[in-house]
Amino acid sequence: MTARWRVHPGGGCGRLREECGVFGIWGHPHAVELTHVALYALQHRGQESAGIASVRDGHLRLHKGMGLVSEVFSEGVLRDMAGEAAIGHVRYSTFGASDPVNAQPLVVRYRRGMLGLAHNGNLVNAPQLRDELEGQGSIFQTTLDTEVIAHLIARRPTRELADAVAGSLAEVKGGYALVFLTSDTLIGARDPHGIRPLCLGRLDGSWLLASETCAFDAVGAEFVREVEPGEMVVVTRDGLVSQRAAPAGRPALCVFEYIYFARPDSDLDGLNVHSVRKQLGRVLARVRPVEADLVTGVPDSSVSAATGYAEEAGIAYEMGLVKNRYIGRTFIVPRQEGRALAVRLKLNPLRKVVEGRRVILVDDSIVRGTTSRYIVGLLREAGAREVHLRISSPPYRYPCYYGIDTSAHGELVAADKDVEEIRRLVGADTLAYLPLEGLAEALGRPLDRYCVACFTGDYLVPPPVPLHKFLFERGRVARGV
Amino acid sequence: MTARWRVHPGGGCGRLREECGVFGIWGHPHAVELTHVALYALQHRGQESAGIASVRDGHLRLHKGMGLVSEVFSEGVLRDMAGEAAIGHVRYSTFGASDPVNAQPLVVRYRRGMLGLAHNGNLVNAPQLRDELEGQGSIFQTTLDTEVIAHLIARRPTRELADAVAGSLAEVKGGYALVFLTSDTLIGARDPHGIRPLCLGRLDGSWLLASETCAFDAVGAEFVREVEPGEMVVVTRDGLVSQRAAPAGRPALCVFEYIYFARPDSDLDGLNVHSVRKQLGRVLARVRPVEADLVTGVPDSSVSAATGYAEEAGIAYEMGLVKNRYIGRTFIVPRQEGRALAVRLKLNPLRKVVEGRRVILVDDSIVRGTTSRYIVGLLREAGAREVHLRISSPPYRYPCYYGIDTSAHGELVAADKDVEEIRRLVGADTLAYLPLEGLAEALGRPLDRYCVACFTGDYLVPPPVPLHKFLFERGRVARGV
Amino acid sequence: MTARWRVHPGGGCGRLREECGVFGIWGHPHAVELTHVALYALQHRGQESAGIASVRDGHLRLHKGMGLVSEVFSEGVLRDMAGEAAIGHVRYSTFGASDPVNAQPLVVRYRRGMLGLAHNGNLVNAPQLRDELEGQGSIFQTTLDTEVIAHLIARRPTRELADAVAGSLAEVKGGYALVFLTSDTLIGARDPHGIRPLCLGRLDGSWLLASETCAFDAVGAEFVREVEPGEMVVVTRDGLVSQRAAPAGRPALCVFEYIYFARPDSDLDGLNVHSVRKQLGRVLARVRPVEADLVTGVPDSSVSAATGYAEEAGIAYEMGLVKNRYIGRTFIVPRQEGRALAVRLKLNPLRKVVEGRRVILVDDSIVRGTTSRYIVGLLREAGAREVHLRISSPPYRYPCYYGIDTSAHGELVAADKDVEEIRRLVGADTLAYLPLEGLAEALGRPLDRYCVACFTGDYLVPPPVPLHKFLFERGRVARGV
Amino acid sequence: MTARWRVHPGGGCGRLREECGVFGIWGHPHAVELTHVALYALQHRGQESAGIASVRDGHLRLHKGMGLVSEVFSEGVLRDMAGEAAIGHVRYSTFGASDPVNAQPLVVRYRRGMLGLAHNGNLVNAPQLRDELEGQGSIFQTTLDTEVIAHLIARRPTRELADAVAGSLAEVKGGYALVFLTSDTLIGARDPHGIRPLCLGRLDGSWLLASETCAFDAVGAEFVREVEPGEMVVVTRDGLVSQRAAPAGRPALCVFEYIYFARPDSDLDGLNVHSVRKQLGRVLARVRPVEADLVTGVPDSSVSAATGYAEEAGIAYEMGLVKNRYIGRTFIVPRQEGRALAVRLKLNPLRKVVEGRRVILVDDSIVRGTTSRYIVGLLREAGAREVHLRISSPPYRYPCYYGIDTSAHGELVAADKDVEEIRRLVGADTLAYLPLEGLAEALGRPLDRYCVACFTGDYLVPPPVPLHKFLFERGRVARGV
Repeated sequence: MTARWRVHPGGGCGRLREECGVFGIWGHPHAVELTHVALYALQHRGQESAGIASVRDGHLRLHKGMGLVSEVFSEGVLRDMAGEAAIGHVRYSTFGASDPVNAQPLVVRYRRGMLGLAHNGNLVNAPQLRDELEGQGSIFQTTLDTEVIAHLIARRPTRELADAVAGSLAEVKGGYALVFLTSDTLIGARDPHGIRPLCLGRLDGSWLLASETCAFDAVGAEFVREVEPGEMVVVTRDGLVSQRAAPAGRPALCVFEYIYFARPDSDLDGLNVHSVRKQLGRVLARVRPVEADLVTGVPDSSVSAATGYAEEAGIAYEMGLVKNRYIGRTFIVPRQEGRALAVRLKLNPLRKVVEGRRVILVDDSIVRGTTSRYIVGLLREAGAREVHLRISSPPYRYPCYYGIDTSAHGELVAADKDVEEIRRLVGADTLAYLPLEGLAEALGRPLDRYCVACFTGDYLVPPPVPLHKFLFERGRVARGV
Repeated sequence: MTARWRVHPGGGCGRLREECGVFGIWGHPHAVELTHVALYALQHRGQESAGIASVRDGHLRLHKGMGLVSEVFSEGVLRDMAGEAAIGHVRYSTFGASDPVNAQPLVVRYRRGMLGLAHNGNLVNAPQLRDELEGQGSIFQTTLDTEVIAHLIARRPTRELADAVAGSLAEVKGGYALVFLTSDTLIGARDPHGIRPLCLGRLDGSWLLASETCAFDAVGAEFVREVEPGEMVVVTRDGLVSQRAAPAGRPALCVFEYIYFARPDSDLDGLNVHSVRKQLGRVLARVRPVEADLVTGVPDSSVSAATGYAEEAGIAYEMGLVKNRYIGRTFIVPRQEGRALAVRLKLNPLRKVVEGRRVILVDDSIVRGTTSRYIVGLLREAGAREVHLRISSPPYRYPCYYGIDTSAHGELVAADKDVEEIRRLVGADTLAYLPLEGLAEALGRPLDRYCVACFTGDYLVPPPVPLHKFLFERGRVARGV
Repeated sequence: MTARWRVHPGGGCGRLREECGVFGIWGHPHAVELTHVALYALQHRGQESAGIASVRDGHLRLHKGMGLVSEVFSEGVLRDMAGEAAIGHVRYSTFGASDPVNAQPLVVRYRRGMLGLAHNGNLVNAPQLRDELEGQGSIFQTTLDTEVIAHLIARRPTRELADAVAGSLAEVKGGYALVFLTSDTLIGARDPHGIRPLCLGRLDGSWLLASETCAFDAVGAEFVREVEPGEMVVVTRDGLVSQRAAPAGRPALCVFEYIYFARPDSDLDGLNVHSVRKQLGRVLARVRPVEADLVTGVPDSSVSAATGYAEEAGIAYEMGLVKNRYIGRTFIVPRQEGRALAVRLKLNPLRKVVEGRRVILVDDSIVRGTTSRYIVGLLREAGAREVHLRISSPPYRYPCYYGIDTSAHGELVAADKDVEEIRRLVGADTLAYLPLEGLAEALGRPLDRYCVACFTGDYLVPPPVPLHKFLFERGRVARGV
Repeated sequence: MTARWRVHPGGGCGRLREECGVFGIWGHPHAVELTHVALYALQHRGQESAGIASVRDGHLRLHKGMGLVSEVFSEGVLRDMAGEAAIGHVRYSTFGASDPVNAQPLVVRYRRGMLGLAHNGNLVNAPQLRDELEGQGSIFQTTLDTEVIAHLIARRPTRELADAVAGSLAEVKGGYALVFLTSDTLIGARDPHGIRPLCLGRLDGSWLLASETCAFDAVGAEFVREVEPGEMVVVTRDGLVSQRAAPAGRPALCVFEYIYFARPDSDLDGLNVHSVRKQLGRVLARVRPVEADLVTGVPDSSVSAATGYAEEAGIAYEMGLVKNRYIGRTFIVPRQEGRALAVRLKLNPLRKVVEGRRVILVDDSIVRGTTSRYIVGLLREAGAREVHLRISSPPYRYPCYYGIDTSAHGELVAADKDVEEIRRLVGADTLAYLPLEGLAEALGRPLDRYCVACFTGDYLVPPPVPLHKFLFERGRVARGV
């Protein structure tokens, strides 16, 4: 164990880690197979665990496990689970120990029968709700916010599931996209601000729900529309009914879905993610220009922004760094010099490309600064004459309480350092961030349509300081995902 | 799946399947390692799943999984779990699908912190309790009776765990041996009649609990005494306190523990299991004699009784059947003639030993009769001139509601057939059972000290007919283990 | 790795380790499935690796791997390998590192096409042949004697496989049972003295070869006869032809097959193994009597002899030791006191049975004495008043060069210690071995019909002292199996 | 098996499959750990199997297995293998059955001791050599050309390994990069034309050999020079000696290493691979221009060429297709519509990017045309108005006999179809290949410095027609890799 070092598959260490992906489908003979395919398409949203709950003949089945979709599901399992409706979930990967009990979906038996739940997001009032519930004699078997929601639903006296769900969602606060499955109903729900994304699709007459549209592409389904902030869609054999789960707040999709999380081929809120990223690069090139010989991006997430920067600046885009695609979640490193080798193995600079050249390095964000410092160092070692770091988002200053892993926030470098200090830390010749106005320009829309709390600290759903403290005191690292 | 055939490791198909084994230890630096060793010793009580919950620095850890102890635990896991207290559990193996969610121990968070539970037995009023709890808004994530008990404990308003446990046990009915673990307490409890066994041991100043004494032998601990029917022992850093959990009923240890379930090297209620079995064979030889050339037993469980029979009858004991020890839980069988091959592979008669001879075949019980018919057939095929089947227990006529798998009861052959009919079914030349009086004689004690409801139908804890129906209607095959 | 301790599944540590099991079948539509079943029946002859080579449409397929038959073969593999002829092999388990490259069968391409070989035994002149072959430019990819034989066959100029095999066998010396498979022929061959066993069977018109008859029982085949010493049986679509591979020497089956290796339900040379063992016990009781309260055997191999002893002596046979059947090949042991725990876990004495009693403990052999000392100690700890050790074979004094693992011979305790010295070493009150004459009496045949070199040092095939030295200098621990 | 569908990790199905990667290191305390790291860096050259042979204390150890480097090696294995010298190998992945016996390195014992070999390439005269060797009594256990070389070396009478290797290489014909390891020597050798690449590096005073320079970058080693065509470098404790293994032919590096196989961050023959690819795109844009709205490349291999094209053409480069990085080697596909789903899942077009636009799709080659047709179809489905396919190499017309998998050659679409026919087949609006002169221009060097036989049919080492026939008749699909 000690000689192993967890390498985050989605980037270097110190990157932001989201989150989860959810999927649901109702009324399709291949519901489970399609959910399985969809989870492959959503795998970038979580590599720690995967699971599917399905319905056949009025009975819920569940299979989930630690690891990638390809590791968790076998042909036999898929065959055993076959049914006409299903929900699926992928969960993010962490560096530390992760608990199998926290894999989703969660399936519970309660007074109305069986209920499956899968959740992306984070509830800011989960600890209080949990304390209240425990005070009333509830037991918890996971550390998931999802389980809190299950308890709330079970305690609602109403006979109608939809009413119980709606009533329960009225009690919770935060960012969430939820899918629910019972023997006769599929429900999708999104938080009042729509912080976490959730889309509605259609295939062969059946309804689908997914965190991102790329899941619809994967199964050949048609994108219909996004689930609205605060909306709840209830799908039964009688079709789809929309109802309000919570008074709609101001819409505020997490802007980091565009910047980093979502797949480039997904469309969110009418905009293609790759195109937005490229536009971020273009705007960045206009407002934060610098003379150089080439532009390069940190693969894979920053390539779109880097090509945008290159085009706008009229400077050649080059592949300055190559990413090794064969490094799994754990990598056995030689002693001592091990870590350096490990990272060099993951990202390799192209000496012939960067040697003696002035390089503009585009990245999407800086969290702790360690990864950036490392990459700048790599380029310098490979002979780059100058390294100009350009970040396609504003400084990430404030922790997220709505679904992004808070464990990485301990040392948000921009929380207490200015740009010049960060530049020195990462060792770049120049460093510039995209200003907030640039973000708006690239999106082509005013920022009040998005949640930008991580840049501004203006939280839509107030996370009282004590709560934050509370979270850490309780050692709740892996909450609410 | 279709070409695989589950072979029950503990015997042929159609055998009774218990049950579970529990273990607990408090205040030993190697608590987890010792629990691991103890579970190996208790493995005969359950091969489906295994698990350990441990305490270190006031925090509960849990590891469990499907399969044998040797498959579920690795060195790394044991190291990660190391602590000063632990409980462990093994669960029986079933033929059909088995659900990982039902592995034990169960660990829950509730108002008093974290609580681990492991359970052997069955609660007859679990369905009603479950309905009541669901009606009050509880959610269930397993089909275990153990989870019912966890809910009851969590709902008790008292601050004291021991009071909460005692109060909860007052609400449940049935047969059970339970171990509980929190950050500061280990509790063991046994049902009012002591139907399921639970022993108390001591090692290096620490207290231990185990379903059978063979677990104490395995870890080098000293057997102290049995936990009394209705007793609850509470172990903390201040030592052990005994308290009554329920008014003691008439003691009634499950007599099948002697006949079939327990390991021959375990002592139960002051009697060694092998010695009782041998005595059963001796009495059987006296009261149900027959002329023959040799005596043989069905390996492994009936060998003790068979040697007793042989000695008493003055007829040579021979190894008439050899059991293949390398057949795992699943065995890939050739098509068509497959099943016959599979069973022949598992049990092989010694032609040279039985050919032309009159054979007394001793077995411990007949459940459905299919296994017996098969074994008698094997001996005849191998040339046995006569086969006299002797059963070292009375006819098994009534289903068990206190912890023995009810799924095998569907076709209790003795429920509606007399001995002669069964003899014809299994194809023996003669068939005789041990009479009830013989059972008492072999034990050297009156039968009212034991639960013999499976022979007499006199249930100590009444399972109302509707309940039984209820159980099956709810499709609760694998309850309460 | 360091904290793991290999527990030998076939017995305690320090036991003899044989050997291998071979099987062959020609002309059956389920040849591969039947070979798979047969390997289960032969698994006691080797648990380290397993393999099958099959023929379909004139092409040889091979699947082999480390581990038990149940671990190496899956349904899919068996399906892929389906064919009309096959050979199979199981290899013994060792304590130390074992090399996957040494799994059998060996399949080679050579001038006549493809050839599969599987081997039980050991060639005393393999090192010389290997040196000669290397001197002629041969390369070796394994340390198997089997590969030496393959080279010899390939170098024979004759077109006929049977001639090439016969010619090659004329060059090798030692003990062996061999099966060969090509696209059109199955060959079985046995060394000139018939040291290693090989039997001929018949099923549905097809011919079968197996190390022991229990493999025929497992597949439902009929035993026809043993392959004669020095005989070679050649099976093609035209039927079976017997030919002489080497001038027949004096027949000399390894007597340890009866004493320890073979399965009790196998018949060897017309005698049932269990019956011989029981007879060994009877004779032992007559010639080495002692007063005692009970007789017990070391499970599983000594149970037959122990019951024989008990019957002859008129003393009750009791189960004095119980073997835990769930301990796999590796067992994770707690630090420090670990080893003691591990062995106690594997064999548990029944205190109630042995306490205060005079115990006759029957075992089949003493190799290094450590296991015996340990078991005697277990019984004393459990309260036995006296422990009289009776060995159902003469003192094992000389290493075997014909197929029994030589690595255990380093410390043959009887090589330089007399019975009284060994008694003191193992801590028994009395110790007695079966004399050589007793062995003959139990078998009912003169000893010159068997290889008893391990007792007498009279080697049929002379192992020159330098050879033995040579073997160890080359570090060839796991040769020729 | 039937419901599984192998998805080639390096691209769609129908892509060219190379080959292998080799690595060697001599005289470094972390030789095995570094080899392990290097194999990660070379993993793109082969995903079917991986292996390492190492030397410690004069003894060779070997570990190899099927699967990725991350699957084959564990921490324990690496620790057990630790040594001061090592060679490593990765082997390509195939669609069909693959044989574990063909994993490399090969380690043999022969008259001079032990010898390890690892090989990238293909020998055109291997079948004849194999026949000759078999005629002389040799046996073969693999279908590897590597084994032929081992036999040749073993049969050389000379005492000196280097002489034996040199003498053996004089007998073989084809393309190869070889590394050899004995207890005291590391040898690297390259075929007379240098068709397959092999580089020499240095780290902490030790010498290294690798197929590509990216392996040196991964371990932090310095690139020294390429091994020359026909050169053999012999490394012992006395240092490195270069000697001629074969008369140098005209240097002729496989041009496909630049076009498709090598990693973009590797330098070959002084040129960076990414830079060459980008230049191929630039030249292609000049000589085969077309009006369009955007340029896109097939990820990952064609992205460099596509950005080159875009820059030269002054047309925006867009991410038109996103590749799912989480699809492993096998992917479980829903029935029926399965295949379509599977491929759509692997490559997803960005509708918002391509809809209504004229797209230039750049790919590196067309083998069978099925992948191209599929991708063109994807873009059209996503709404592309026009799709102009541009191939950054000349038409691939002739099979390769020097190390590229011949199994894909069955239907080389350009073998008998002209460009217009292929255009119709793939469904593009226009199709253009890079002309041969363009290839030269992009490389900046005359083509006679490269092997371009796959474009021209001018084979440097003549593969007589009968040989080719011979290969297929023998069913030798996976030869010599």
